[in-house]
Amino acid sequence: MQLASRLDDLGTETAFAVAAAAADWKAQGHEVYPFHLGDLDFPLAPHIVEAMNKAIADGKTTYCPGPGIPELRAALADDIGSRRGTSFAPENVTVMTGGKPVITKFVQAVMNPGDEVLYPNPGFPIYESQIEYHGGVAKAYRYLPTDTGFAIDLDQVRSLITDKTVAIIYNDLQNPISAESTQAEREAIAQLAIEHDLWVLSDEAYFEMRYEGESSSIATLPGMAERTVILYTFSKKFAMTGSRLGAAVAPVELSRVFSTMNTNDESCTTHYVQWAGIAALQGTQQPVQDMLQVLKGRRDAACEIVNSTPGMSVRVPKSTFYLFPDVTEAVELVGAKDLADFAEQALHNTGVSFCTRNHFGRPQEGEDRTYIRFAYSGLSEDRIREGLTGLKQWIESAR
Amino acid sequence: MQLASRLDDLGTETAFAVAAAAADWKAQGHEVYPFHLGDLDFPLAPHIVEAMNKAIADGKTTYCPGPGIPELRAALADDIGSRRGTSFAPENVTVMTGGKPVITKFVQAVMNPGDEVLYPNPGFPIYESQIEYHGGVAKAYRYLPTDTGFAIDLDQVRSLITDKTVAIIYNDLQNPISAESTQAEREAIAQLAIEHDLWVLSDEAYFEMRYEGESSSIATLPGMAERTVILYTFSKKFAMTGSRLGAAVAPVELSRVFSTMNTNDESCTTHYVQWAGIAALQGTQQPVQDMLQVLKGRRDAACEIVNSTPGMSVRVPKSTFYLFPDVTEAVELVGAKDLADFAEQALHNTGVSFCTRNHFGRPQEGEDRTYIRFAYSGLSEDRIREGLTGLKQWIESAR
Repeated sequence: MQLASRLDDLGTETAFAVAAAAADWKAQGHEVYPFHLGDLDFPLAPHIVEAMNKAIADGKTTYCPGPGIPELRAALADDIGSRRGTSFAPENVTVMTGGKPVITKFVQAVMNPGDEVLYPNPGFPIYESQIEYHGGVAKAYRYLPTDTGFAIDLDQVRSLITDKTVAIIYNDLQNPISAESTQAEREAIAQLAIEHDLWVLSDEAYFEMRYEGESSSIATLPGMAERTVILYTFSKKFAMTGSRLGAAVAPVELSRVFSTMNTNDESCTTHYVQWAGIAALQGTQQPVQDMLQVLKGRRDAACEIVNSTPGMSVRVPKSTFYLFPDVTEAVELVGAKDLADFAEQALHNTGVSFCTRNHFGRPQEGEDRTYIRFAYSGLSEDRIREGLTGLKQWIESAR
Repeated sequence: MQLASRLDDLGTETAFAVAAAAADWKAQGHEVYPFHLGDLDFPLAPHIVEAMNKAIADGKTTYCPGPGIPELRAALADDIGSRRGTSFAPENVTVMTGGKPVITKFVQAVMNPGDEVLYPNPGFPIYESQIEYHGGVAKAYRYLPTDTGFAIDLDQVRSLITDKTVAIIYNDLQNPISAESTQAEREAIAQLAIEHDLWVLSDEAYFEMRYEGESSSIATLPGMAERTVILYTFSKKFAMTGSRLGAAVAPVELSRVFSTMNTNDESCTTHYVQWAGIAALQGTQQPVQDMLQVLKGRRDAACEIVNSTPGMSVRVPKSTFYLFPDVTEAVELVGAKDLADFAEQALHNTGVSFCTRNHFGRPQEGEDRTYIRFAYSGLSEDRIREGLTGLKQWIESAR
C-alpha cells in the first residue's frame, strides 16, 4: 500500500530532536537546563480553572459551534480589536485549537499549488512546512542585524515578489529572533501587500508578551484589514500552551472558510476550555502582569550573562521570551565543527540545551554569522544564571 | 485576492442547517424536540473531572508530545487492544483532538490526487468531503435493507474497485443507519481489502455503544492489522463530545506520519484533557453502563412509537443511538413534496426536528425508499415519547 506523495513535502519542528537529546542526557543522570523549549513554567490562573469547572458543571461538555461559542467570539473580537485600536465583529473571529491551526488553514484557504508565499527565515518552521505541504513555493525572506536587533531585508522581500506571489507571512515580535518592526518597516510590508494584492498572515502570538513599548498590528493600517488574517493565541499571554486555544481574526469570507474547515477537521474546539478563555480575557489581568515581570527579570539575567560570554552577543529584546545571540566566535573558540556540534558539546559540558538557527528554516545563501536561540520562559532566574554561567565558564576555559 | 480552488471541493455537515432551523423555530417560542443532534445529554463523570483538575494542579498545562502523552498512548493501546481481543503497542496510537481528525489525516496520508476511495453512503458526511477536498475520487457504496437492519451491498463494493482504488472507509455500527456487519460481511470486506491491497479506515466510534451482542473489529482479522487504521473516540462512550479527545490506532509507519501531522496542525491535544482520558479508560465504568441502560430505554421507546406510526418502520438496532426509519409512505401521507419538505412540515406541526437521508451524502442512483434519522441520545425518554407521539398523531391525522 502506498503512502501519499504529499508526505514528501511535510516538514516538522526539528526542535523536537533537541528535546529528545536533552531528555536523554538528563536520563543519564546529568543536570539539564532546558533553554530549547518555547514553553512557560507558570500555572494556569485560578480564575481560569474555576471558569472551566463552572462550565463543566453547567453542562458545557457537549459539541459546540465549529467557529467557536458566540460568547468567546464576541469576547475575542472586543479584546483583540480594542488592544489594536480598531474594532472587529464576532463574525471575524474563528476559534481554533491553538494558534498553529491558523497557519495551515490560512495556507489552504489562499494558496493554490504552484503559488508562492513569502515567509520569514529564520522563523517558525511550520510556515515553510505548511506552504510546501500544500503544494506552494515557500520563498524565504531574511533579517539583517541592526544596532537594536534585526530588521527585515525589505529589498530582498521586494525582489522575491513575482506574479505568482499570493501571500506574505509576517511575524512581528518574532520567534526565534525577537525582531520587532519599526512603524516604517510595518508600513513598507503593508505597502507591498497592497501594491501586489497579497494576503497577509500576521502572526501575533507575542503581541502582548512585551516588557516596554507598545505593540501595533499591521491589520490596522489603511487597506490592510481586508487582506490580513491575525493569528491570535492564548498560549503565551495566559500560560495556556497546553490548553490549545487560539483564533483567527479575518475578513468574513475567510472566517466562513475557516469555520467549514473546523467542521471538517475537528468539529469544534474543546467546549469548556472556550469558557476558560473568556475568563482569561475578561477576568483579572494581574497574573499576566506578574508573569511579564518575572520574564523581564529572566530576560535581563540571561542577556547580562550572554553579553559577558566570550564570542557571544545579543541585543536586549523588548518582547517575546527568546534571545537569538550571535555565537560565531564562541563556536570557533570551543573548536566546534558546526552549530550542531556546538550544541552537543554545550549540552555535554554544561547541561545547557538550546535550539540553533538551523531549527528555524534552511539557512539562506550568504549567511556568514551563526546564531542560537535561548528560550528563557521555562526556567527560573536562578536556574538561568546557573546554566548560562556554566556555559560562559566552559567557553572562557576554551580561550 | 484569490481564494484557493481546493475550497470548491470542501464539503461540510449540512446537518447544521437543521440545527439552525430548529433553533430558529424554538426562538419563535415553539417547543422543539431535537432529534437531529448526535450529541449526549449526560454529564462528564465526576472522576473524569477530578482527574483533569488534578492534572491542572500538577502542572499538566504545558505543551506535550505531538502523538499524545505516553501514559495515554499506553492506556489506549491496552484498552483498545484488549476489548478487541488483540494487542497494540503505544507506538500504534496517536492521540488526536477527537475522532474526526483521524479521517482527514488518514485521507491525506494514503491518498494521492486522482486516487479512488470507497465510502459508505448514507454515511458520515465528512468522509466524502475529505476525500474530494484532498483531490481524490469519492466512490459511494450503499446498504440494502434486510430482515434485521441493513447490509452492505458487497456486489456493488466489488464493482466499484478499480486499479485506482487505494482505500475503503468502513463504519461498522454505522452512523446514520445503525447497520451492523455480520462476521461474514466483515470478512468479505477484509478479503477485498487484502485482495486489492487497500488501506482500511475502520471508524469504530460506536464500538462500545451497544445494548446487546458483541462488537468485533475488522483490524483483528488475519492480514488486516497492517492495513487498518482504527478511529477511536472518547466522545460517545464517555459522553465527552465537547472534550475533543480521540485517537488513531495504526501501523507504526502511519502513526509516525500522524504524529508529524499533529506537530504541523495543532502541536498537541489539550494536555490535561489527556489525563482526563486516562481516568475515563481506567476508572469506574459504572457511568458508561448507566448511560447505556438509559439509552436502551430511549431506543425502545422511540422504536415502539416509530413502528406504530403510519408509513414509518424501523428495525430495532443493537448499537449506536440512531434510528433510520423508512418513511416513504409517511412522506406521501402528509403530502410532502420531498424529504426536506417533510422535515420542515414535521418541525412546524410537531416541533420534532431530525436529519434526513440527504444529510448523509448524495443519494445514489436507484434509491426508491426514503429515510430520516432520529438521534435519541440528547432527549429524555419522556421527551422522546412526547415528541414522537406528536409526530405520530400528526401523520395519523393526515390519513
